Amino acid sequence: MKNFQTLLLVLTVFYSCNDKKESTVSADENQHPKLILTKKGVEKIRASLGSVPIFDKTLEKVKKEVDAEIADGIKMPIPKHYSGGYSHDQHKRNMVVLQKAGVLYQILDDEKYAAYVKDMLMQYEAMYKTLPVHPKTRSYARGKLFWQCLNDSNWLVYVSQAYDCVYNYLSEEERNKLEKNLFKPFADFISIGNPQFYQRVHNHSTWGNAAVGMIGLVMDDQELIDRALYGIKDLKLDTTEKDDDGGFLNKDGKAGFLANIEEPFSPDGYYNEGPYYQRYAMYPFLIFAEGLHNVKSELKIFEYKDGVLLKSINALLNLSDADGDFFPLNDGQKGMSYYTSALVTAVDISYHFGDQDPGLLSIAAAQDRVLLDDSGLSVALGIKDGKIAPFNKKSINLSDGPNGKQGGVAILRNEDIELVFKYAAQGSSHGHYDKLSYSLHEKGDEILQDYGLARFVNIEQKGGGNYLKENKTWAKQTIAHNTVTQNETSHFNAKYEIGSQHHSVLNYFSSENENVQVASAKESNAYPGTDMLRTMAVIKDTDFEKPYMLDIMKVTSNKANQYDFPYYFLGQVLKTNFDYNTPKTLNTLGDKNGYQHLYVEGTAKASNDNSKLSWLNKGKFYTLTTLTNNNDELFFTRIGANDPEFNLRREAALMLRRKDTKNTLFVSAIEAHGSYSPVTESAVNSNSNIKELQVVLDTEDYTAVQITNVNDNVKLFITSNTNASKEAKHKIKINNKNYEWSGSYYFE
Amino acid sequence: MKNFQTLLLVLTVFYSCNDKKESTVSADENQHPKLILTKKGVEKIRASLGSVPIFDKTLEKVKKEVDAEIADGIKMPIPKHYSGGYSHDQHKRNMVVLQKAGVLYQILDDEKYAAYVKDMLMQYEAMYKTLPVHPKTRSYARGKLFWQCLNDSNWLVYVSQAYDCVYNYLSEEERNKLEKNLFKPFADFISIGNPQFYQRVHNHSTWGNAAVGMIGLVMDDQELIDRALYGIKDLKLDTTEKDDDGGFLNKDGKAGFLANIEEPFSPDGYYNEGPYYQRYAMYPFLIFAEGLHNVKSELKIFEYKDGVLLKSINALLNLSDADGDFFPLNDGQKGMSYYTSALVTAVDISYHFGDQDPGLLSIAAAQDRVLLDDSGLSVALGIKDGKIAPFNKKSINLSDGPNGKQGGVAILRNEDIELVFKYAAQGSSHGHYDKLSYSLHEKGDEILQDYGLARFVNIEQKGGGNYLKENKTWAKQTIAHNTVTQNETSHFNAKYEIGSQHHSVLNYFSSENENVQVASAKESNAYPGTDMLRTMAVIKDTDFEKPYMLDIMKVTSNKANQYDFPYYFLGQVLKTNFDYNTPKTLNTLGDKNGYQHLYVEGTAKASNDNSKLSWLNKGKFYTLTTLTNNNDELFFTRIGANDPEFNLRREAALMLRRKDTKNTLFVSAIEAHGSYSPVTESAVNSNSNIKELQVVLDTEDYTAVQITNVNDNVKLFITSNTNASKEAKHKIKINNKNYEWSGSYYFE
Repeated sequence: MKNFQTLLLVLTVFYSCNDKKESTVSADENQHPKLILTKKGVEKIRASLGSVPIFDKTLEKVKKEVDAEIADGIKMPIPKHYSGGYSHDQHKRNMVVLQKAGVLYQILDDEKYAAYVKDMLMQYEAMYKTLPVHPKTRSYARGKLFWQCLNDSNWLVYVSQAYDCVYNYLSEEERNKLEKNLFKPFADFISIGNPQFYQRVHNHSTWGNAAVGMIGLVMDDQELIDRALYGIKDLKLDTTEKDDDGGFLNKDGKAGFLANIEEPFSPDGYYNEGPYYQRYAMYPFLIFAEGLHNVKSELKIFEYKDGVLLKSINALLNLSDADGDFFPLNDGQKGMSYYTSALVTAVDISYHFGDQDPGLLSIAAAQDRVLLDDSGLSVALGIKDGKIAPFNKKSINLSDGPNGKQGGVAILRNEDIELVFKYAAQGSSHGHYDKLSYSLHEKGDEILQDYGLARFVNIEQKGGGNYLKENKTWAKQTIAHNTVTQNETSHFNAKYEIGSQHHSVLNYFSSENENVQVASAKESNAYPGTDMLRTMAVIKDTDFEKPYMLDIMKVTSNKANQYDFPYYFLGQVLKTNFDYNTPKTLNTLGDKNGYQHLYVEGTAKASNDNSKLSWLNKGKFYTLTTLTNNNDELFFTRIGANDPEFNLRREAALMLRRKDTKNTLFVSAIEAHGSYSPVTESAVNSNSNIKELQVVLDTEDYTAVQITNVNDNVKLFITSNTNASKEAKHKIKINNKNYEWSGSYYFE
Repeated sequence: MKNFQTLLLVLTVFYSCNDKKESTVSADENQHPKLILTKKGVEKIRASLGSVPIFDKTLEKVKKEVDAEIADGIKMPIPKHYSGGYSHDQHKRNMVVLQKAGVLYQILDDEKYAAYVKDMLMQYEAMYKTLPVHPKTRSYARGKLFWQCLNDSNWLVYVSQAYDCVYNYLSEEERNKLEKNLFKPFADFISIGNPQFYQRVHNHSTWGNAAVGMIGLVMDDQELIDRALYGIKDLKLDTTEKDDDGGFLNKDGKAGFLANIEEPFSPDGYYNEGPYYQRYAMYPFLIFAEGLHNVKSELKIFEYKDGVLLKSINALLNLSDADGDFFPLNDGQKGMSYYTSALVTAVDISYHFGDQDPGLLSIAAAQDRVLLDDSGLSVALGIKDGKIAPFNKKSINLSDGPNGKQGGVAILRNEDIELVFKYAAQGSSHGHYDKLSYSLHEKGDEILQDYGLARFVNIEQKGGGNYLKENKTWAKQTIAHNTVTQNETSHFNAKYEIGSQHHSVLNYFSSENENVQVASAKESNAYPGTDMLRTMAVIKDTDFEKPYMLDIMKVTSNKANQYDFPYYFLGQVLKTNFDYNTPKTLNTLGDKNGYQHLYVEGTAKASNDNSKLSWLNKGKFYTLTTLTNNNDELFFTRIGANDPEFNLRREAALMLRRKDTKNTLFVSAIEAHGSYSPVTESAVNSNSNIKELQVVLDTEDYTAVQITNVNDNVKLFITSNTNASKEAKHKIKINNKNYEWSGSYYFE
């Protein structure tokens, strides 16, 4: 720290003369840096150094990191490996270090950083001009530095920034050499050379667009900028081709950065592939937007589509749990959180270019670092000036689809309980076949999990770090999720062509009453001839220690079916109120559609009553109460069958099976209660507080569930199945008692 | 906090007059309080209030807690339930609150606390005098307030302290009533009334002894005090009877508190049942010792057996991992740690009555609370005065047995790696049949686990919170542990009568070289005719990122056997260097001795080489390298078969099976390496650094293992199997090269 302070002192002393020197270089609009750092911004940053703790700390850390890299020397391996392998990791490392070294050159005005950037760029130039396509063949769009164009695009997004920072340090001759042999061919290769990658609406393409656009902005190459914004001119692709993940390459011919904003984001800022992929796409969206804002302010990029880019950041932050981990919708790897560097970008940009929400400062403070640019400086100053406030996540309903008309995702929150209810569209190629599924969380821990991804991202030992086959055979299948599977087949027969044409439809969302948060949605296409209407509530009742979940799944079909309804609880079984048998040897529940991955660990015949399961996880107790009849079967299942490489986690579920049934109701409550500490060894409130769940009315228009607690206090929840608007007035009679209310539901 | 400060102010004002009032009550030695609090100590505490942060904070918290209880009113249910049930938990709560209220009365001099203690004691008196034996019948020694005398004893240990605190507040008549109808009969019931519980060497009895002794000290009843110290006079029990856990009730007729210090503690302070039970026993040992020190200082209890009580605290703290969790030797529930209140007692008493080790202050600071007595004040003052220093845990060898002649437990530590090697005696009735087993830890996380207990302590839903049958059928069996099982039978045939007669024997322990920590021990009785000599090392080699474990298990037998050698790794399989098959249906590995609880998830034929398994756990990579030959079989197993109530965790192992072999060597290395973060999604150093393990010499006297790393750097480890003293000189030839060294092992 001492050294750093000395450095700041030195900087301050040399600041004015240095400033003069640079200001003689160029006075026109095309001066550098201009892309992410700006001439004016750099001046302001230099003047603030030493007085903005979180910025200073980040700078010090980055300096240490880059100094170590410089000391270590440049490594330029010939491209050879998949993700997680040496050459892959090294070039990934190089791009990040280049960007950082560029920034350090600007902020610290120390030529050693510029020289380092120049040296490495020249080595890339030397290698790239004769570089063949990457030897690994798995991708639908192979890169040159990396096995896929996606990673090449990542590289150019970072390296454009580095080039911008050292632009004026380089001679014109050097710039020409780099642009002619490296940047221009690089941009052309990932776009014109790989239209199946570049010319579509997909997070991969967003990276491609940003890469081409950012180098275009630095090089002042309008052709590249236009190609970035609008796609490759006059190119039409075969709209029936598919990529590695089973997604259409370009179904409707749209392409370019603006189309990539237009299509995947709903007006609420929900990104159709889910938060994990939004996080990944966020960086190119925002960093290119920042560049466009700085260089092409006339585009008003942050106002595009009613300001959706900034809205999307708010949506993304709301799609995280109490620990900041993103809810694992679709193919999301668990553990990804708003601590990732892309979210530092998002939070800083949102604060700076948005309306300076003080809640964002608390997330920035938790992230404990900022961007080393104008936006990061804004955040650092905001924190320094004590503007910080908590970021309050509330219940929120996020529409899906470009116009917000393709279902959505609802988050119900009350105290520490968070319920994530998905009634969205397919979610592009990363979507799962899990209409109306949900996951339930308590203070950052999963109560009922959504399995998410079968992939170990960047762990080479596991299928090169890529999607494992169990992602298709298990994680994408309906039975892997907390929703209904009919006749042991997945929604839409797990066919992307069909699934991507449909979406669920909101019945209603209500969060006005802080004690009763409800979301209700309908799915009519997953199984033709079958309608599923699911109403999920998180209810805070003073008779209960914590808010509980109420779940009413109403299934209506034109024929008799078998319905499987799993609960993917995490933790150790404590108690059931039903007898079950455990088999001597473990067999699978079925042989396809994900069933082949489930062992049956226990079987039971249910009774005409409530079936209950209590479990313990991470020192907390949970109880499921679900209505069953005496034809129902119950299964304890465990994931992991037909998993020859141990790619799946051995986790459990209780599954309710109802056979030979046309119309039916699944009604469940899940309570979180009490706690257990292995240190005090005391078990607090370890028993369920629900004595009985009972359906007291079920018609086309209404379903009414009565909840009786152990002290015989009775509550009634009535949901409107059809006419559910806020304004609708209802009057019904249940057991000779009249109920009258207006709005979507009744609870008392 | 404000209110509390006001309170302190008031206290200070009233302090002198109050002091005078009390000092007129009695001037003789028998004044109260005298047991844990002392008259003089209370004066000092009162004078310090407001200036000793950790003490003040604890006091404030205790006051808040007790005030809430007082506001809530006294609850005195008729005894009815097992642990975890209402009446059990309420009486447990009452005893703690009584003790705290008594202390508050003394420290704060507020009569409301004394009145509360008196009221509750009188209610106990009213109930107890006609109370029958507890209705639950499971215990070998049923209590009255609780289902077992053990809990009744807990109660009296706490309540004696409360009684002492209000002794002078009560009239003589009130005292007589309580002593005659409650305390004396209570003490008699748990001792004379239940000699099978009281009259033995066991942690249960220690509680009984302390209970009887502490109330004896308060009542100044020499008969009770003697009964506590020396056992019930002239009583001899049947020495062949057993308790619930299969332990002998009183094999050698010893009894009383002094015998309970004498027998279970080794001279190094290791407690024969392991740290989990030592922690439980610690409180009565120390709190009664504190009472004896205060009232019967002539006994010099803290100097008894060369000061073993204080030594045992140091041993116990060293038997915890980086998070303070105790290593799960024997029937230990995982997660119990030095944050438990018994360890607050232990740390404070050790500091105060020992030599004021500043390292203890850092543990006290982490515990964030102190005893509200003289010892707690000492600690609070020590922290306040800045005497705090880190408690450095090092490699340590703890002998077992009353004279330190019954094997022991060695902890090898280097950087974040901790290896717990058990070569001890049986461990009383809580012991497992796991001679020469070990567990391996990194910074508080288990790398290879020891399963420990099949019990959910105090969780009523799981077998009343008591031992589950899987504790005997699984957790105690040899195959549940990281050691050799011969011919699918457990050590000593899992017979306590045999196991408790034997112990392993130290070959050598060496921790002088900070880079090479080694423990070596021999077991000759687990399987008659078979000797097992295991040498375990934790080696820091600069060629490796982290210290690695080297394990040499040398088996010598008079006949051919099958040897099973499991590795209970935790986490997800990443990679093996051998091909394995996974079965369609899961069957058990065997049908008895714990094998019935293991499913076979994969099978392989090993090759004449090194077999390797890499896995990922909690963001860290691990690799096992083990020597195999082409007759060896490898099994992936998973715990959980024949577990009809889901009492066992579904955790994995790799097991090496060697058939039809007399003498053999198992040689393994386990490396911890690298890291993976789901936030950065980058995998660092995810591959093993060991190219080959090779046995280059194996004779009766020496075993030499050569470790070649991926850069072909070669190291040699030679262990002395017979003549292993520090002074011994060795000279041997391996592959025509001479090696000469003195000491137990060679490494270079």
